[in-house]
Amino acid sequence: LRKITIQFEPEGRKVVTDPGQKILDIAEESGIGIRSECGGNATCGKCRVVIQDQSRVSELTDPEKKLLSESEISAGYRLACCTTATGDLVVEIPEESRIRVRRIQITGMERPVKLEPLVKKLHMILPTPTLHDIRPDVERLLDALESEYGVAGLELSRRLLSDLPDVLREKKWDVTSVIWNDEKLVAVEPGDTTDTLYGFAVDIGTSKLVGYLVNLQTGETVEIVSVENPQTSHGEDVMTRISYTVEGEKNLLRLQKLVIGAINSLMRQACASAGISTKNIYELTIVGNTAMHHFFLGIQPKYLSYTPYVPAVKRPLNVRASDLNLSVGPEVNVYVLPCVAGFVGADAVGDVIASGICESEERSLLIDVGTNTEVFVGNSEDILSCSCASGPAFEGAHIKYGMKAVTGAIEKIKIDPGSLEVSYKTIDNEPPVGICGSGILDGIAELFRAGVINNRGRFNNIDSPRLIKQNGKKEFVIAWGDETVTGKNITITQGDIGEIQLSKGAIHTGIAITMKRRGYTNKDLDRVYIAGAFGYHIDPLSAKIIGMLPDIPTEKIKFVGNTAVTGAKMCLISKETREKAYELSKKIRYLELAVDPDFQKEFVNSMYIPYKQIEEYPSVMELLSPETKNK
Amino acid sequence: LRKITIQFEPEGRKVVTDPGQKILDIAEESGIGIRSECGGNATCGKCRVVIQDQSRVSELTDPEKKLLSESEISAGYRLACCTTATGDLVVEIPEESRIRVRRIQITGMERPVKLEPLVKKLHMILPTPTLHDIRPDVERLLDALESEYGVAGLELSRRLLSDLPDVLREKKWDVTSVIWNDEKLVAVEPGDTTDTLYGFAVDIGTSKLVGYLVNLQTGETVEIVSVENPQTSHGEDVMTRISYTVEGEKNLLRLQKLVIGAINSLMRQACASAGISTKNIYELTIVGNTAMHHFFLGIQPKYLSYTPYVPAVKRPLNVRASDLNLSVGPEVNVYVLPCVAGFVGADAVGDVIASGICESEERSLLIDVGTNTEVFVGNSEDILSCSCASGPAFEGAHIKYGMKAVTGAIEKIKIDPGSLEVSYKTIDNEPPVGICGSGILDGIAELFRAGVINNRGRFNNIDSPRLIKQNGKKEFVIAWGDETVTGKNITITQGDIGEIQLSKGAIHTGIAITMKRRGYTNKDLDRVYIAGAFGYHIDPLSAKIIGMLPDIPTEKIKFVGNTAVTGAKMCLISKETREKAYELSKKIRYLELAVDPDFQKEFVNSMYIPYKQIEEYPSVMELLSPETKNK
Repeated sequence: LRKITIQFEPEGRKVVTDPGQKILDIAEESGIGIRSECGGNATCGKCRVVIQDQSRVSELTDPEKKLLSESEISAGYRLACCTTATGDLVVEIPEESRIRVRRIQITGMERPVKLEPLVKKLHMILPTPTLHDIRPDVERLLDALESEYGVAGLELSRRLLSDLPDVLREKKWDVTSVIWNDEKLVAVEPGDTTDTLYGFAVDIGTSKLVGYLVNLQTGETVEIVSVENPQTSHGEDVMTRISYTVEGEKNLLRLQKLVIGAINSLMRQACASAGISTKNIYELTIVGNTAMHHFFLGIQPKYLSYTPYVPAVKRPLNVRASDLNLSVGPEVNVYVLPCVAGFVGADAVGDVIASGICESEERSLLIDVGTNTEVFVGNSEDILSCSCASGPAFEGAHIKYGMKAVTGAIEKIKIDPGSLEVSYKTIDNEPPVGICGSGILDGIAELFRAGVINNRGRFNNIDSPRLIKQNGKKEFVIAWGDETVTGKNITITQGDIGEIQLSKGAIHTGIAITMKRRGYTNKDLDRVYIAGAFGYHIDPLSAKIIGMLPDIPTEKIKFVGNTAVTGAKMCLISKETREKAYELSKKIRYLELAVDPDFQKEFVNSMYIPYKQIEEYPSVMELLSPETKNK
Repeated sequence: LRKITIQFEPEGRKVVTDPGQKILDIAEESGIGIRSECGGNATCGKCRVVIQDQSRVSELTDPEKKLLSESEISAGYRLACCTTATGDLVVEIPEESRIRVRRIQITGMERPVKLEPLVKKLHMILPTPTLHDIRPDVERLLDALESEYGVAGLELSRRLLSDLPDVLREKKWDVTSVIWNDEKLVAVEPGDTTDTLYGFAVDIGTSKLVGYLVNLQTGETVEIVSVENPQTSHGEDVMTRISYTVEGEKNLLRLQKLVIGAINSLMRQACASAGISTKNIYELTIVGNTAMHHFFLGIQPKYLSYTPYVPAVKRPLNVRASDLNLSVGPEVNVYVLPCVAGFVGADAVGDVIASGICESEERSLLIDVGTNTEVFVGNSEDILSCSCASGPAFEGAHIKYGMKAVTGAIEKIKIDPGSLEVSYKTIDNEPPVGICGSGILDGIAELFRAGVINNRGRFNNIDSPRLIKQNGKKEFVIAWGDETVTGKNITITQGDIGEIQLSKGAIHTGIAITMKRRGYTNKDLDRVYIAGAFGYHIDPLSAKIIGMLPDIPTEKIKFVGNTAVTGAKMCLISKETREKAYELSKKIRYLELAVDPDFQKEFVNSMYIPYKQIEEYPSVMELLSPETKNK
């Protein structure tokens, strides 16, 4: 078969491939991001591309006729998931089809740990073989390691053996050995290379990957890099991606290849900035939620989506870099942090480690808000965890004008209780395009505080020009059409409020039940840690007003940022922390909310704003106007 | 690039490949054996093929013009190493260019050992996960293995993990675990498969591979298979192959691929005969000389050919089958027996184990005759070893009418001391083509016994029609032209005798020095073991008469056959034997003959027939006629 060349514009990137493949697949194999919320199922219509020469692609399909307008079709628009390339081609990816770069919290709280990385370098000059000393290369090296450094019983791989004879002789028996955990030879390098010893910690987020390049001799983070998770083209959320793996035998491998490609590119980027080679990375540590963990390792993830949602494995894993095609030395160890349960993954273990709730006597609540929100309650004695199905509303999904936290998203909202006038702030102070999670959370809190909505989330009968009707349903205008990019009003609808009630209700239920089972009341809590990218941007008061968080003093709330990656970094530089992570994964108890007898009742109560029993929220009560209280 | 199709005749085998490659390389990549003694260097002229359509191959080269006759060229003869295919092609491989199938000793002495294979199978029915028992798959499996069988702390690979969720559920949590050495999960299989547990032991000989398929539950060898070593196309002997790896960067990988392909084909063949799948092979053990060992493992072998001849490694190695592309389960362990030194390889360790000299108080001499002859002297207390550069004369090389032990080779010779009439026997009783190693050894012993040659190996002035002159040099006719296939006399020349003197002299020197350093005289020896394919066919009396062996009673000599492979088999079924092998490799002392002060003198004496001091060979003295003694 002849190969064909696809040129992607505006980058001008050329890809040589076999004919007969879908444009979406070709783009993705080459790391070119095209949106595809439905995971290539021809239902979302987001993967629009422009192809001028339609003679070299497959014919228009029914889904395209449905999802594209006639004028678009005549302008050459196609859906990349429906279009097969048959010859050389130029494909234009319009702005709207690109995976947009989001604002994300890449740094996080980090606690000091004893610097004790698992890899170390030992330099030696070996005696040269003679007819009177015919010890083989391996035995010569291992003998010297034992006699000079007391390191014995090292394992050594066939792969390392293969060019060891040349390596040892390259600088006349002057060599540096890289040893992992005093048990395995990771590399042997000619000469003295002991001054270069790095590691790389990665958080594989569902939407973004963050990498820390760390100097293992000082424990210092020398570079922080991040990249969109390219798996996003197969679905924005975990469940869509799991479904994608079920649809085709090779799809899991594709997801794995995508994430590994992203990590390789992160490493290249970080090493280039630091002026070192990726060969100087001698260990990696990885966190991610359980699905990301399974995708990364190429483990069948299907059963994560069926009750009782068991993962394939929870214990920490040590995998060879070459088994994963990571572009570092073949024997480099990849340490994957342990998980707790199907929905409490290695990223959450990172949160626990970095926040330190496991080592303090302080009674703590730790939450990492996302599509699934992980909740931990406890202290050094005992920690109880659960996972709440908080859904994607905070990511802007199912919200009429919802959007991700990108440029132009309304992220802060204030409503004057008297005039009901609205003030807002957008990301990068650009004209508003929509509302992101922290904005919608602010908006609902302010609507409630101003008495525009009641504790069941329904609009009160208020007289305001901002309370308008669309198709017979009430909406509250946050930004008027003349202020927005699209020229249309940006509003919060009754439906939006309902979505947020479901989300915050799920989180509150999880927190309430976990605290109850741990035997804590709100007053007992010494500290609340809010981890994760989303959490970092929310207003704690708004979160309390809507009842997402329990009513505890704001000064006890601490935003800790991306503690998943800092937890991974702590494991990278500290053997002791790694041992703690394993202990934690076994020790943290997991509470299955679905089988808790109080679940239903608690969930119903938690749907109210802030809560059915308002007396549980005394500080919120104080904030409310007398009118609001009576409504 | 378009692919092209090469059809090899007379098999009719079609190979689809890229154009621009040499015919020899294409054949070899496909496992089609074409002779190439020079390793593809266009010097030996052995890789002759016939190509009718010369328009689809590269032009005739200078070496071809030199090595092929004009009539051959006009008949379409080409050298496969000089000819590049540019289009679809039919290539005929004439009989003379085929790698011939040789007689080889594939069985050997085997001692009973305690049956304790390292792999075992454990069957279990696991509890099904519920919302009240959400243990992950791995932890569920490992918990059960620990509680039901007391096996704890098992290692488990990422590769095994990847489809473990499906495997566990395939027969509803009814599974069999395959465990290696109580430390590693090798496989997990649906249902109860405990009745099928096999292993495979392989001897990688320089010219032939032998494989034993072994039932690990009974210790029984169920199939014995063998195949030519396909590396032969890159050189008959070890040194040519090592040179080949130095010539091109990918050549070592090629040799590795060839031997692994051969082992895969042996396994397929053995399993097909036994009616099982290669997936039922759960461990392999491998022996071979140090060069074969390095080629198999893909280890740089270059330094084996430079003084002081150190191997890359001597210790036993455990390698994953998937790292070697062996077509068994990816996590199957491949145990490679240890070596002793650069020229005393894992095959020799197999000899020691199978012969049992390491466990007996009997003072033994063990030799494995080949291009390098390994010598072991000692008993359970202490064993001393050396390697003798005996050269390829016993393989028929550098002998005027020498040939390998194939059909038509003269393998036995008797000469009447009175009439000097010759009787001989050929392999398969076909008309003679040449003389193989055991024949030439017989011939020289008989010439000496009959007084035709003296103790310096020179022809005496004998009056016999069989003692003829060619180009002024004496030769003794073994078979007259009218008896032979070629119509020409088959003779033993002065040069041939010299070659054998060098070979046997080297062996005798090694034996004599090693015995001396071990403190043994001929009388001390309780037993002589002769191992290896060649040794199996020699006449012990002839070997004594020419002085290859010391003068000890014939009844003390035992031919043990292919003990390399039986040693590997013993390691396959016995953990204890494997531990002994490791101990042996550390304990056996290696004597470097080149630095022994007696080497030169001993070698000079050993060149005589049987020895300079004939009184060292009383039994040979008795055999000689008075005339011979006086000559």
